[in-house]
Amino acid sequence: MGGCPPGPVTVWHEQRLRVRYEETDTMGVVYYGKYLTWFEVGRVGLLRDHGLGYKEWVRRGMEFPVVQAHVDYKAPARFDDEILVKTKVASIGNSSIRFENEVYKIPEGLLLATGHTVQVLTDREGVKIPFPPELKERLTST
Amino acid sequence: MGGCPPGPVTVWHEQRLRVRYEETDTMGVVYYGKYLTWFEVGRVGLLRDHGLGYKEWVRRGMEFPVVQAHVDYKAPARFDDEILVKTKVASIGNSSIRFENEVYKIPEGLLLATGHTVQVLTDREGVKIPFPPELKERLTST
Amino acid sequence: MGGCPPGPVTVWHEQRLRVRYEETDTMGVVYYGKYLTWFEVGRVGLLRDHGLGYKEWVRRGMEFPVVQAHVDYKAPARFDDEILVKTKVASIGNSSIRFENEVYKIPEGLLLATGHTVQVLTDREGVKIPFPPELKERLTST
Amino acid sequence: MGGCPPGPVTVWHEQRLRVRYEETDTMGVVYYGKYLTWFEVGRVGLLRDHGLGYKEWVRRGMEFPVVQAHVDYKAPARFDDEILVKTKVASIGNSSIRFENEVYKIPEGLLLATGHTVQVLTDREGVKIPFPPELKERLTST
Repeated sequence: MGGCPPGPVTVWHEQRLRVRYEETDTMGVVYYGKYLTWFEVGRVGLLRDHGLGYKEWVRRGMEFPVVQAHVDYKAPARFDDEILVKTKVASIGNSSIRFENEVYKIPEGLLLATGHTVQVLTDREGVKIPFPPELKERLTST
Repeated sequence: MGGCPPGPVTVWHEQRLRVRYEETDTMGVVYYGKYLTWFEVGRVGLLRDHGLGYKEWVRRGMEFPVVQAHVDYKAPARFDDEILVKTKVASIGNSSIRFENEVYKIPEGLLLATGHTVQVLTDREGVKIPFPPELKERLTST
Repeated sequence: MGGCPPGPVTVWHEQRLRVRYEETDTMGVVYYGKYLTWFEVGRVGLLRDHGLGYKEWVRRGMEFPVVQAHVDYKAPARFDDEILVKTKVASIGNSSIRFENEVYKIPEGLLLATGHTVQVLTDREGVKIPFPPELKERLTST
Repeated sequence: MGGCPPGPVTVWHEQRLRVRYEETDTMGVVYYGKYLTWFEVGRVGLLRDHGLGYKEWVRRGMEFPVVQAHVDYKAPARFDDEILVKTKVASIGNSSIRFENEVYKIPEGLLLATGHTVQVLTDREGVKIPFPPELKERLTST
């Protein structure tokens, strides 16, 4: 694979959750910042499904600080709604990774939000490290 | 003023706060989603300073749901850090408003994050309403 | 049933969840306030299992504000831990209800916390209302 | 001072804050779990005022995990309300400390909640350590 970034991966990880009362606000809808928590839940689930559970990060001494986050809100979610968070790896650079997310209300399949996050791979001191090729492959295989 | 959008307003609202333990995560830094709460604190302060405190929104039957949020993270904040959240109105459309934010660690003045949010003005049923001209003027005056 | 409070109900509702990164703090453990969110998730699940899902509260015009909350912390939870939240109705008064909670780390079965909450039943204006006998029965049947 | 616990300290630390939109829920009031965050803000402020700012904890290698938390809710707080959080050291044991809190809406002085937390003093590995006498004295002097 060398330095060539792999093509986009089109397999979505799917994570279900239910809106907590704590996540709602005075407008009766989910507070806009909580979508970033849901994106996190999606990313962590995707990584776990690719053999990169948290214990494995710790073993490898890796951290994934977020350097960019973006959300477009389409429709509100309300308390007790069932939610589907879809996450995919959009691209992997030398030491960064971009995840894309879509959030749906189920069972209607109503799109609530889209967005993305960019993370860099660092060691425990916060110094950027390159993606191990074996990890890149694992995250871009389906 | 009619239909012409006012030029960008360059006066920053400044809001100080201190990092709460609740806002930090296992990496020992402020969780990425919390910056959207700080942006909210900045926006609310800016609106209050322009005579649009919450009681006034309620009196007018207005709400401001967020339709877009974006953050670029530059450096981490840690527990008990003193933070300066700067907020300005970047532009006002027919029924939307764009706020820009900068977050600094003080007293060093280290830039921690930049970002923006876009809100639409709606009535209590969530139906978009045009910005009253008098409000536009108030929010774009310094 | 009349005015006699039913005896304690000993059937535990069980709800599984996984620790979110957002829920942890600089000590690397779940922030103490988040247990109240987990208690909420447990209560809501228990009520739903007894035919009192949120749509049903709304239909009946009922709300359940919390008047007391208590937690004893026994051992810390960490990011990505699998958690079991057990909830039961401990007693129902005229217009109040007491839930008890136990939180475990699974699969070890390590007890992390115990606690309780007391809620009052109110109408949408926050005025206390008596528990409808049929509701009391439903919540104290197994 | 030896093993004798000092008498109760009756000086309240006062911390003002303003309700954030993020802290409210669908009932239009502050979510019950957020009071524990406010108690934290109060404790941290009290410790800082006694020369125990966070940098000092870190220098001494101390942590303060919470082992018990309790809240009695008297009246709801709403978005943008100004809040006064009062905190005092109620007692200090060998390696534990009990803080009491009162939360008021200002300027009315309406009591919103009372409560307490108990913390133990530990080293960075979570092992209980006795309160240094000089610390006890400092925390119980006014």
